[in-house]
Amino acid sequence: MQSDRGRVLLDSIKRLLRRGSTSHLRKIVNKTHAADLSVIFRALTLSNQRKLFSLILDIEHKGTLLGELDEDTSQQFIEGMSLEEIVEVLEVMPNDDVADILGRLPQEKSDAILERMEQEDSEEVEGLLSYDDDTAGGIMVPDFIALKENVSAGEAIKSLQKEHQDVEMPFYLYVVDDHERLVGVSSLRQLVVVQPETPLKQFMTTDVFSVQTSMDQEEVAKIVARYDILAVPVVDDTNRLVGIVTVDDVIDIFRQEATEDILKMAGVGEEFVETKSVMRSTRIRFPWLFASCFGGIIAFFIIGGFEESLKKFTFLAAFIPVIMGMGGNIGTQSSTIVVRGLATGRLHVRDLGQVVFKELLIGLILGVIYGILIGTVAHLQYSIHALAISVSLAVISSMSVAALVGSLVPMIFAKINIDPAVATGPFVTTAIDIISVFFYFQIATILLGI
Amino acid sequence: MQSDRGRVLLDSIKRLLRRGSTSHLRKIVNKTHAADLSVIFRALTLSNQRKLFSLILDIEHKGTLLGELDEDTSQQFIEGMSLEEIVEVLEVMPNDDVADILGRLPQEKSDAILERMEQEDSEEVEGLLSYDDDTAGGIMVPDFIALKENVSAGEAIKSLQKEHQDVEMPFYLYVVDDHERLVGVSSLRQLVVVQPETPLKQFMTTDVFSVQTSMDQEEVAKIVARYDILAVPVVDDTNRLVGIVTVDDVIDIFRQEATEDILKMAGVGEEFVETKSVMRSTRIRFPWLFASCFGGIIAFFIIGGFEESLKKFTFLAAFIPVIMGMGGNIGTQSSTIVVRGLATGRLHVRDLGQVVFKELLIGLILGVIYGILIGTVAHLQYSIHALAISVSLAVISSMSVAALVGSLVPMIFAKINIDPAVATGPFVTTAIDIISVFFYFQIATILLGI
Repeated sequence: MQSDRGRVLLDSIKRLLRRGSTSHLRKIVNKTHAADLSVIFRALTLSNQRKLFSLILDIEHKGTLLGELDEDTSQQFIEGMSLEEIVEVLEVMPNDDVADILGRLPQEKSDAILERMEQEDSEEVEGLLSYDDDTAGGIMVPDFIALKENVSAGEAIKSLQKEHQDVEMPFYLYVVDDHERLVGVSSLRQLVVVQPETPLKQFMTTDVFSVQTSMDQEEVAKIVARYDILAVPVVDDTNRLVGIVTVDDVIDIFRQEATEDILKMAGVGEEFVETKSVMRSTRIRFPWLFASCFGGIIAFFIIGGFEESLKKFTFLAAFIPVIMGMGGNIGTQSSTIVVRGLATGRLHVRDLGQVVFKELLIGLILGVIYGILIGTVAHLQYSIHALAISVSLAVISSMSVAALVGSLVPMIFAKINIDPAVATGPFVTTAIDIISVFFYFQIATILLGI
Repeated sequence: MQSDRGRVLLDSIKRLLRRGSTSHLRKIVNKTHAADLSVIFRALTLSNQRKLFSLILDIEHKGTLLGELDEDTSQQFIEGMSLEEIVEVLEVMPNDDVADILGRLPQEKSDAILERMEQEDSEEVEGLLSYDDDTAGGIMVPDFIALKENVSAGEAIKSLQKEHQDVEMPFYLYVVDDHERLVGVSSLRQLVVVQPETPLKQFMTTDVFSVQTSMDQEEVAKIVARYDILAVPVVDDTNRLVGIVTVDDVIDIFRQEATEDILKMAGVGEEFVETKSVMRSTRIRFPWLFASCFGGIIAFFIIGGFEESLKKFTFLAAFIPVIMGMGGNIGTQSSTIVVRGLATGRLHVRDLGQVVFKELLIGLILGVIYGILIGTVAHLQYSIHALAISVSLAVISSMSVAALVGSLVPMIFAKINIDPAVATGPFVTTAIDIISVFFYFQIATILLGI
């Protein structure tokens, strides 16, 4: 749904809600895709959300919609539902979505729900809840098609017709041995191409990519993306097949990881969600600003230490913003290139020396160009050689150091397994600010002979 | 391939290259996945790349590898190949990959290659080259399975066995009318579940998502992601089916768009690639620093205008970094949240007023907190009430204005269809720097009674 269509739909639903035209609303909600409804839900009040939800006739449609809602909306919405109502809808949802929802509820409520669910489902959900959110186990779907290697292509097709109706990704058939250990894979495509009596073991691929339940979700996503596969099987410690991660979840992982990286780099905190609460946003953003406050106060004391220089040459103050700005900006460039390069696999930790040296060189070249430019402006304004040279040198050193620090810090963080994106935000910028200001006043004090 | 495994592989290949152990190398390159080889290629010299390439026995393997190489590496590599060699490999590659490669070559060379290719392929490639790179037409695969609606499920399966062997995504079968217009879709799954004699029109889904050739690739990707489909059909103006966009390309689009957004926000320029050339990097990054240089010079003149105030109260200079830093950081927070919110669809242009008001409120609250904190430090150090109050007020106004500008500018850019990510980088930061410095000196001059 493009945003124009979405807007038209939202407007008509709002209008119908105001008018109370229940029959029109019922028609619309029942023929609109759950993914589109979920967007509309976000813009409605809770009571209107409930009204629309109650108009949905098909329980499966209700389940899909609940699975599509974003965290904030779904949590709020579920809080208002009775236990019976929740259980009824959860029963028809894929168990990985159920686990996601239960994982966000208070322990008590989630236990009460699990108790009321059918045993088979609740056991599966509890199994999923035992894995970390960000691992292969936490994102996998426990529904897949697993057959023994002696099954023939024709029998496999028959089993598709009778069972596995609710398998999300029925395009791969996994082959397991007597201990449920993964030994091969066949695509649905191969199944229809070979003679019906051919056993799976004769045409299955034995070189299967698989991941362990504990693998980080980002690694899992990279494997699926690199090999252009539609799903990757997840195995436990004993190579027993326990689930699959499908490509649509991989898309979500990449988008989520990119968002987290961007927010971390901007110093907003990775847990930020588009909440409607001003106080919650304020609370999340507050600590990230502290680094820059602290750095600013250090810069304040540094400049205070050069009070004599400033008394003699007041105009020194006027160059503080441009020197800090140039250093800050090239530092952000360098750290962003490094962080994103590491995230996409274009840069490797093993290339530390090479990457940092290259950045330093670029910082130096750009520093010389902009240093001359800004020094010239200084000279035109004040006609003091020593001042112009001080400003030029300050820009050069600030930009070189910024490129160095901006590339070195995330590389080192990656090396010691700290998320490099965290390094990039306010911390690097603040460090660069302090260094820039100090170099500038030190150089000027010497050259101006204060 | 995880990075550890990748490193081991790279090291052994480098060692074997030094020793010239051709037979070992041949064994390794022929059993390593093309996606893994492409990563290794990036770390090798051109002559070693060529050596490894010549050892690959299967021409299809060569083709896949060429398709997997990143822009820089592939361009360099192809420049060194003879026309015959290029054509031989391109003939076995999917035509969308061929079009990508030819689109990056000089016109002459690409024409010469097209001339030597088989007519059917070259016509298809030329067709693809006529679409914009960033549209559905530019990224689609022209290979798909299209059948008429009277074909039975059994006949459809037979046609899968005989033709369409090289279709990338054989999980959907599209149904077209006599004019090749898209009328329905069936999954391979449905095909094996129904009775063989059932005609497609009886079980196909007629409510097909499709996109126009001219649709922006990001929109296409969003549709595939939202509806969790594996491929979306692409139609021309007359609804004729001309290609499909597959989910693996969608992953690449999201990753690429996220990278572009991140780089734009950091002021590096969207075309940035991890090039090995220092001069090229410098050239790309140079213009983006100009905004901050220009802004710094304006700030310089603003501060110069308050020389009298500075002469009287030198210590005013010491607060410039903290005031600029706080404004800059909260501005980056606000603009990043807005840009990413717009990109992921969590925020909409229609909510402009609400979003900007919320950011302003957060800026004001955080401004008051940090204003009091920094004002207290000022008071402890200098014991001048008017100074402490000036600094506090400057922080409050700087942070409020920064949150306002940081959220308003990208929202307005999005409204007038300019990419909001461009607005977020150095431009917003620079504007905030100038405003912060001006407010600070204006407030201090008044309150200190200069």
